[in-house]
Amino acid sequence: MIKVGIVGASGYAGGELLRLLSTHPEVEVSAATSKHNAGDYVFKVHPNLKGFTNLKFTAETPSEVASRVDLLFLAVPHGSSVRITPGLVETGIKLIDMSADFRFRDSSKYPVWYGWEHPAPDLLAHFVYGLPELHREQIKNARLVSVPGCIASSSIYSLAPLAKSGFIQDPVVIDAKIGSSGSGNKASQATHFSERYNSVRIYSPSGHRHIGEIEQELSSVSGKPVTATMSAHSVNMVRGILTTSSVLTRDKLSEPDVWKAYRSMYRNEPFIRFMMDPTGLYRYPDPKVVVGSNFADLGFALDSHVDRVVAIGAIDNLIKGAAGNAVQCMNLMNGFPETEGLLAPPMRLI
Amino acid sequence: MIKVGIVGASGYAGGELLRLLSTHPEVEVSAATSKHNAGDYVFKVHPNLKGFTNLKFTAETPSEVASRVDLLFLAVPHGSSVRITPGLVETGIKLIDMSADFRFRDSSKYPVWYGWEHPAPDLLAHFVYGLPELHREQIKNARLVSVPGCIASSSIYSLAPLAKSGFIQDPVVIDAKIGSSGSGNKASQATHFSERYNSVRIYSPSGHRHIGEIEQELSSVSGKPVTATMSAHSVNMVRGILTTSSVLTRDKLSEPDVWKAYRSMYRNEPFIRFMMDPTGLYRYPDPKVVVGSNFADLGFALDSHVDRVVAIGAIDNLIKGAAGNAVQCMNLMNGFPETEGLLAPPMRLI
Amino acid sequence: MIKVGIVGASGYAGGELLRLLSTHPEVEVSAATSKHNAGDYVFKVHPNLKGFTNLKFTAETPSEVASRVDLLFLAVPHGSSVRITPGLVETGIKLIDMSADFRFRDSSKYPVWYGWEHPAPDLLAHFVYGLPELHREQIKNARLVSVPGCIASSSIYSLAPLAKSGFIQDPVVIDAKIGSSGSGNKASQATHFSERYNSVRIYSPSGHRHIGEIEQELSSVSGKPVTATMSAHSVNMVRGILTTSSVLTRDKLSEPDVWKAYRSMYRNEPFIRFMMDPTGLYRYPDPKVVVGSNFADLGFALDSHVDRVVAIGAIDNLIKGAAGNAVQCMNLMNGFPETEGLLAPPMRLI
Amino acid sequence: MIKVGIVGASGYAGGELLRLLSTHPEVEVSAATSKHNAGDYVFKVHPNLKGFTNLKFTAETPSEVASRVDLLFLAVPHGSSVRITPGLVETGIKLIDMSADFRFRDSSKYPVWYGWEHPAPDLLAHFVYGLPELHREQIKNARLVSVPGCIASSSIYSLAPLAKSGFIQDPVVIDAKIGSSGSGNKASQATHFSERYNSVRIYSPSGHRHIGEIEQELSSVSGKPVTATMSAHSVNMVRGILTTSSVLTRDKLSEPDVWKAYRSMYRNEPFIRFMMDPTGLYRYPDPKVVVGSNFADLGFALDSHVDRVVAIGAIDNLIKGAAGNAVQCMNLMNGFPETEGLLAPPMRLI
Repeated sequence: MIKVGIVGASGYAGGELLRLLSTHPEVEVSAATSKHNAGDYVFKVHPNLKGFTNLKFTAETPSEVASRVDLLFLAVPHGSSVRITPGLVETGIKLIDMSADFRFRDSSKYPVWYGWEHPAPDLLAHFVYGLPELHREQIKNARLVSVPGCIASSSIYSLAPLAKSGFIQDPVVIDAKIGSSGSGNKASQATHFSERYNSVRIYSPSGHRHIGEIEQELSSVSGKPVTATMSAHSVNMVRGILTTSSVLTRDKLSEPDVWKAYRSMYRNEPFIRFMMDPTGLYRYPDPKVVVGSNFADLGFALDSHVDRVVAIGAIDNLIKGAAGNAVQCMNLMNGFPETEGLLAPPMRLI
Repeated sequence: MIKVGIVGASGYAGGELLRLLSTHPEVEVSAATSKHNAGDYVFKVHPNLKGFTNLKFTAETPSEVASRVDLLFLAVPHGSSVRITPGLVETGIKLIDMSADFRFRDSSKYPVWYGWEHPAPDLLAHFVYGLPELHREQIKNARLVSVPGCIASSSIYSLAPLAKSGFIQDPVVIDAKIGSSGSGNKASQATHFSERYNSVRIYSPSGHRHIGEIEQELSSVSGKPVTATMSAHSVNMVRGILTTSSVLTRDKLSEPDVWKAYRSMYRNEPFIRFMMDPTGLYRYPDPKVVVGSNFADLGFALDSHVDRVVAIGAIDNLIKGAAGNAVQCMNLMNGFPETEGLLAPPMRLI
Repeated sequence: MIKVGIVGASGYAGGELLRLLSTHPEVEVSAATSKHNAGDYVFKVHPNLKGFTNLKFTAETPSEVASRVDLLFLAVPHGSSVRITPGLVETGIKLIDMSADFRFRDSSKYPVWYGWEHPAPDLLAHFVYGLPELHREQIKNARLVSVPGCIASSSIYSLAPLAKSGFIQDPVVIDAKIGSSGSGNKASQATHFSERYNSVRIYSPSGHRHIGEIEQELSSVSGKPVTATMSAHSVNMVRGILTTSSVLTRDKLSEPDVWKAYRSMYRNEPFIRFMMDPTGLYRYPDPKVVVGSNFADLGFALDSHVDRVVAIGAIDNLIKGAAGNAVQCMNLMNGFPETEGLLAPPMRLI
Repeated sequence: MIKVGIVGASGYAGGELLRLLSTHPEVEVSAATSKHNAGDYVFKVHPNLKGFTNLKFTAETPSEVASRVDLLFLAVPHGSSVRITPGLVETGIKLIDMSADFRFRDSSKYPVWYGWEHPAPDLLAHFVYGLPELHREQIKNARLVSVPGCIASSSIYSLAPLAKSGFIQDPVVIDAKIGSSGSGNKASQATHFSERYNSVRIYSPSGHRHIGEIEQELSSVSGKPVTATMSAHSVNMVRGILTTSSVLTRDKLSEPDVWKAYRSMYRNEPFIRFMMDPTGLYRYPDPKVVVGSNFADLGFALDSHVDRVVAIGAIDNLIKGAAGNAVQCMNLMNGFPETEGLLAPPMRLI
């Protein structure tokens, strides 16, 4: 049994951490901080948790929380973590950062994708990119983990086997569709129901910040530079991501070639499912049947009109794209069973 | 560890039973029957369960299943159960029927609400109405349980305390809003997405079949006849029910009066939550924050313009309104902890 | 051809006025004011209107606008109109007020339903309640019109025939379901997509402000006091209202009795449709097939279990519940054909 | 004033034709046929049209209808038109075919994209591809017009300027998102609300039949062969299409280069709108603000990470993607003003 704290627990990723940890047998949540909601019961902000916790949000500093827990989750906005983290690192605490501030290994990527110079570039080398399927052994031994971005996760899961098998030579074009929870809990004109409902909004036709992570990880698994780009859309739902990635291949690939790439990489992964069925309603991954769970559902199709592999990934952006991967990393870092607290099946009908 | 079978497991209630039981530590699902899908993997029809079960649907008869399990769930259409059940009862098996066929104690209610004479009226006395909060002790000792209807459940949960306290004298008017899953998995013009989306359809302005159950249970808890009526609407979502019930009272009631009625009845119930908050977004029950769980969320408001109590209930129609109550009954019937397999918190964001 | 101005044209009702008037052959919109968007093209805020207008929002005062137009629409918040209007009235301009500030004939209703004393009670007698079907002749001769509330409109349309025929003796209970556009264009936590989607939120279980208008109009048409109350819910859509009203009658009414009440009142109304079909998908009014138009769709059902008439109304809250009725009043006030600019059929599929 | 008939008028495209023509001053709809609904009022199937037409569906043959009208719309399934049309052509009637059966100029494309040999290949040369913006003069003189596919329309509108300017050398990858009405009015398990809601279903990762049309038209406008491919998704809405097309260019293009391509082609088009705004909510085309109208909303973005133009198109699939283009063609064929009956502005809030 360990004690954990969550800094920034009133946001959606924080709320999802609280939900997942509420039934985790090895963890006690000792602190949940929130500037805006300090003093409120957690269930005031996350009413689904009524009956599951009598914790109240506190206004403690990260350091105060760190002094009384074994592990700290940082669920704070991009750019905030980097100001908090250096001080925390010195305390020796285990740290799982949900922000983007320590995802790149190469500090020169921050100006490119985030528009700022990284103030603590030396720390980057001490963080592990928290995608268990690609970095399991490193995570087991890590003290500092940086949880991948949500669209990045779906993209990397679905493209890594193709990169590893050397099928990616030309730029990959990723088309992403994401629900509203991906943009957080702060109300704005853009998220006003009357404007957001029934819309298909291309909010980032190019230049999405997750591209940098995707290239880093695909290049790493491929062993040579991989280029990717993306157009990202918000669609009419709250949870879930679907990424449809086009890999224009120089050679004609067969279905067994591609299957082999996926199977050899993910055969024993507890949270990867292949959703490929030649008949029925669910022939490919669909956020609808993965939402609520920590699975990454993967599939692919070959295009015979042009030589193209269509790589498809679906995840719950708040779970496998955020809090679920964070808990999976926590399990690995602490020697708990990797799947502990994460094996609730998704709901079928949402 | 008991073995259970599910007859009619390809429907939505059957699928939800499979999902809940997939992580229940005391149960092994030994059989899942389906005429249409016999031979298919369960996850072909319920793709969310991929990775959780390798069971296949069978075409076994209920009797065949009964011969090799300890308890049988019947998730078959209304009117089917009554043909199957008499034969099963003779085998001595424990039976939990999800249909309406054994919900009334008084056989004369079938012609009124369902339009047919009950062919096995003597059996009705052997069934217990499977609402644990009202019939816990009977269920513990029951061999035959009939699971309440979904809208009936939400209505009864929210009105029973008022009935018990004698506040209901005149007819109660219930306004129900329900998601599409309540009408099952069979495609029809009425459920065609293009017609059903964005609609608020009053599919039953009067004469809804659940009225009979509601009157039965409210009269029973009240100790005198209670009259109710209902208008039922399908709304633009898949899961969830909200019932808003108007009780025109003859006396002016105070908020403490009504609180006392609810608290005294449900104080220690593990699956009843009071969702009443004078501030914030979730001031009253809302399907949004209960869906995915076995809770019944309750609240009320007083109307000072006319003497009226507005009793509000929200449940997940497939869980607390069907499969969840069925599992809760199963736990009671078998001496398992009542909440076993049912304590997953709802998701906040769906 | 008249010139009109719209004060508060960046809101949703203002936008809908602009849309309806953009194709009205007798009207030129000369001014559209908006404090926040002054200087912006109208299509910046209402992008649907791109290609239909090159008007820009101005920061003019209502008086400035009044000095150069023939008729003024006030689409400002409740409580604002009452500050602006007295000065405008003196100019002699024709005025159509979309707010609630001049809907009551009896100033004592303002403290009851809005919580403030009316500062210009003498003006109330000069306004006509802008429901053409009930006050056509008065509107034709009116200089000052107050447009009814949206839920009030749907309720009054569906209940007025019953009131007029003397069928309403006991309090009517109205259950209202409304889309998000009813609460305006201002973002808030309550309208944040992630919180509002898939929710059925009882935002006003009792005490809704439209009750006062409904009682005023039903009493007027009935010739004796009528009492009503309401529970109002926001549902998962943007446009549209459905009201389901329960009239517990003291006598048993037949279907022909009720038909006669509706027919005799609305037989020749151009914007009232009876949506009653014993078969098919659309047996009763449904916002889905009226949205986008100026119709009020009406229907009813008898309840034989208790003596109850269920009166059902569906409208587009922004059109027949706001801008459409405003344009219909404008047509009447100016001697234009009553249906001018308002006869676009609703879309079937939204 | 001409008389027109609609064969297959109970479907969604037929219903939309009926809606658009109900207010068209130059047209009288004399016949609406439907096998399944013969004898029913049109408003029984299209309840939105109640009050706009008292027409009944008939079971007449296309030839019977042809004998008493001036122009015939065929709104029948793919594969049906080709059986009907040859006989109709001989009668000399003007014909607008909504199906795919006469869209290709080259009969060899039918086996490739539709899987069947065309039985009347000689007729193909007599049909004009009914995209007014590309074939206006031909349509004016045409007797036989074939209306483009809906996803094809959005794709071609957004890509034609790039093709014409020679910017497309490598295969274009189109990512399409479409609402449920695109798949017609026939209920199936795939369109069952409980399965279709909240889903993002990649129903055609490759091999979509509209690719053939797109290549035909882009090659024609480009003057050299253009290759395209597509992944098509159904998303959680009823109406509307968004296409996001990736053109990987061999040269670095500037924004003025691309603007010039679009402007020079579409400058005077009445139904093309450029939706590009560097600020605000609607920076790019979005189905939300075009649905209900005959516009094609276009926009683009440059990708500086890889040399890519992202071409974005949004239309209402039933209007600019079907019935609206059909009416626009009818106007051209009959010498009516091209925009007659088509200038209703879209609704903002749906």
